[in-house]
Amino acid sequence: MAGERLDERERRDWLRLMKSEHVGPVTFRRLIARFGEASEALKALPALAQSGGLQRSIRLYPAEAADGDLERADAIGARFVGLNEPDYPPLLARTDSAPALICIMGRPELLQTPMIAIVGARSASAAGRRLARDFSSRLGRAGLTVVSGLARGIDAAAHEAALDTGTVAVVAGGIDVVYPPENQDLQQAIGERGCLVSEMTPGTVPRAEHFPRRNRLIAGMSLGTLVVEAALRSGSLITARLALEQNREVFAVPGSPLDPRAEGTNRLIKHGASLATSADDIIASVSGLVERVEHEAPAFQGLADEDGVSNFDVAGEAHRDRVWALLGPAPVELDDLIRESGLAAPVVNAVVLELEMAGRIERHPGQRLARLA
Amino acid sequence: MAGERLDERERRDWLRLMKSEHVGPVTFRRLIARFGEASEALKALPALAQSGGLQRSIRLYPAEAADGDLERADAIGARFVGLNEPDYPPLLARTDSAPALICIMGRPELLQTPMIAIVGARSASAAGRRLARDFSSRLGRAGLTVVSGLARGIDAAAHEAALDTGTVAVVAGGIDVVYPPENQDLQQAIGERGCLVSEMTPGTVPRAEHFPRRNRLIAGMSLGTLVVEAALRSGSLITARLALEQNREVFAVPGSPLDPRAEGTNRLIKHGASLATSADDIIASVSGLVERVEHEAPAFQGLADEDGVSNFDVAGEAHRDRVWALLGPAPVELDDLIRESGLAAPVVNAVVLELEMAGRIERHPGQRLARLA
Repeated sequence: MAGERLDERERRDWLRLMKSEHVGPVTFRRLIARFGEASEALKALPALAQSGGLQRSIRLYPAEAADGDLERADAIGARFVGLNEPDYPPLLARTDSAPALICIMGRPELLQTPMIAIVGARSASAAGRRLARDFSSRLGRAGLTVVSGLARGIDAAAHEAALDTGTVAVVAGGIDVVYPPENQDLQQAIGERGCLVSEMTPGTVPRAEHFPRRNRLIAGMSLGTLVVEAALRSGSLITARLALEQNREVFAVPGSPLDPRAEGTNRLIKHGASLATSADDIIASVSGLVERVEHEAPAFQGLADEDGVSNFDVAGEAHRDRVWALLGPAPVELDDLIRESGLAAPVVNAVVLELEMAGRIERHPGQRLARLA
Repeated sequence: MAGERLDERERRDWLRLMKSEHVGPVTFRRLIARFGEASEALKALPALAQSGGLQRSIRLYPAEAADGDLERADAIGARFVGLNEPDYPPLLARTDSAPALICIMGRPELLQTPMIAIVGARSASAAGRRLARDFSSRLGRAGLTVVSGLARGIDAAAHEAALDTGTVAVVAGGIDVVYPPENQDLQQAIGERGCLVSEMTPGTVPRAEHFPRRNRLIAGMSLGTLVVEAALRSGSLITARLALEQNREVFAVPGSPLDPRAEGTNRLIKHGASLATSADDIIASVSGLVERVEHEAPAFQGLADEDGVSNFDVAGEAHRDRVWALLGPAPVELDDLIRESGLAAPVVNAVVLELEMAGRIERHPGQRLARLA
């Protein structure tokens, strides 16, 4: 399925499925694996959720709403790209949490280049912004596309310095929603000369919970992530952690222990991030980064069988009870669940999918599952 | 021999031997291993040097000069401590390059405590000096003795902050020679409340080549070395390299890439030094440091057999020619020399000692030897 293109009907069904209740990125792929097509999955969702124990009807995203999203994207010069399509960023497609569709505007070819993320504090110092510009322009001249989150401070400085060589901004809200207001011109410039990316539909106003999700896209499409100035407990450290979880390199710019804006970057270095004082430090390791991502992250193999849990069987009430009894608030691995239940893997897969659709369990990284409430 | 005390006659002979021409720290131990006593080695030196090819008489340090040094030390309240005596700093005694005698003044018991070196730029910033003080006073309160080199800037700040808890200053010149002038009061205070250490005889005016030698004592007696502010190509980086060569930990305080005083410390971290933002980072690893030094550095075993090359045989002219022919300006390992010469190890050991006494070869770290000129 990888490398194909969705037709317009499929694209609408993908969007509907992606935006339906209880469907996350991993579950989306499970549903396609089980039902072959998004349209079939949409038909099956109500019964699945009911089997899983949902006491009311599951909320499906209406076809008209999806049509409206697609039309709005078209009107503003944006479009939705599916996980299995050639324009989708290849490193992002390899991650567990890759969204089924992303909305893009600008030059899609930038998404096929080697990318480096530069992120950092919104309340950056003048020195921090200067460092972000220096790193960004030199990485750009070395042939790397600079990815960031279009926030104030470090993000904006990194984008600005890479406008001429190529920059990708991943925004937390809809691709056409200006945020923050002072970056309006920059957002427009990137939509024309660079590439804007969002997993939200156009018009979505960004909320607090969208920012960590945005960070996972930044880390996921990049070979490595550079953090320039970050306090402790900042979004940039979340991006760095997500990069490490995806086996990508994290670089951090050091600073004086007397400078609170360096607390986060110094801590990253203490915990294994590479200290970077100039773009050369990153450029020197890029070929190693490419190799590592290619060797250690699974290449995207399409939607049907990339994780070996694509076999489903019909589950009965007793199976559901047995699996449910083994789940608790602490995440357990799917393999343990299968072993301890004594049930066949396809049966457990089916039960898990039903419980997910009912909103009763939650997925954690690494095929782990936990009860919700 | 370890744990004994030298009598006054032996101490004088040790001083004479140590200060005689072509006798370095390693050769000193070879000579004691071969001849048993310093007095016997002194008698043998002229013939050894002649056998090795020295065309003139080797210069022995006169007995009267050594007596004068000992009297001068006594007069200023200092004394010489031998490598095999209980007051000698134990971690220093384990290093290859431990001087046969050091001159000390103040509280010798400090030399038996766990020590951490704090070194850095003479032209330190106010922030750097503040960091040095913070690290030093907190390490002191945690029970560690702070070692440094009594230079301007970072060194002086580190000593001052540890005067109450215990500090050791290793000076490049004689223990009674004030250098630099502005540290006169500090030097006096350490001589009373801390401990001053020098491998030079009293009255020696420090020369440029004494400073790297001094740095090796600082690194050698310490569990680890913290570098606070250092430019590239600075003496502090030499101390750090010496610490690494002796399998001790190196800590470095990071700084902004825009601050030239942080170039050296940032580079150290890039090359594997531990990033330290507070004394806790060092304290947390002290027990690990103690274990590592105890496991990986050889304990001082006395002078006779600590390196397994203490057997000597009589060498003839043909043996000397064969060994000499195998030596070049690039260092070769003693083991290779023995193997390639086809001679017995005790014969090669004897030839090497003669060539050293003749000033024709030079020792490099790791039992490696090279022709001089």
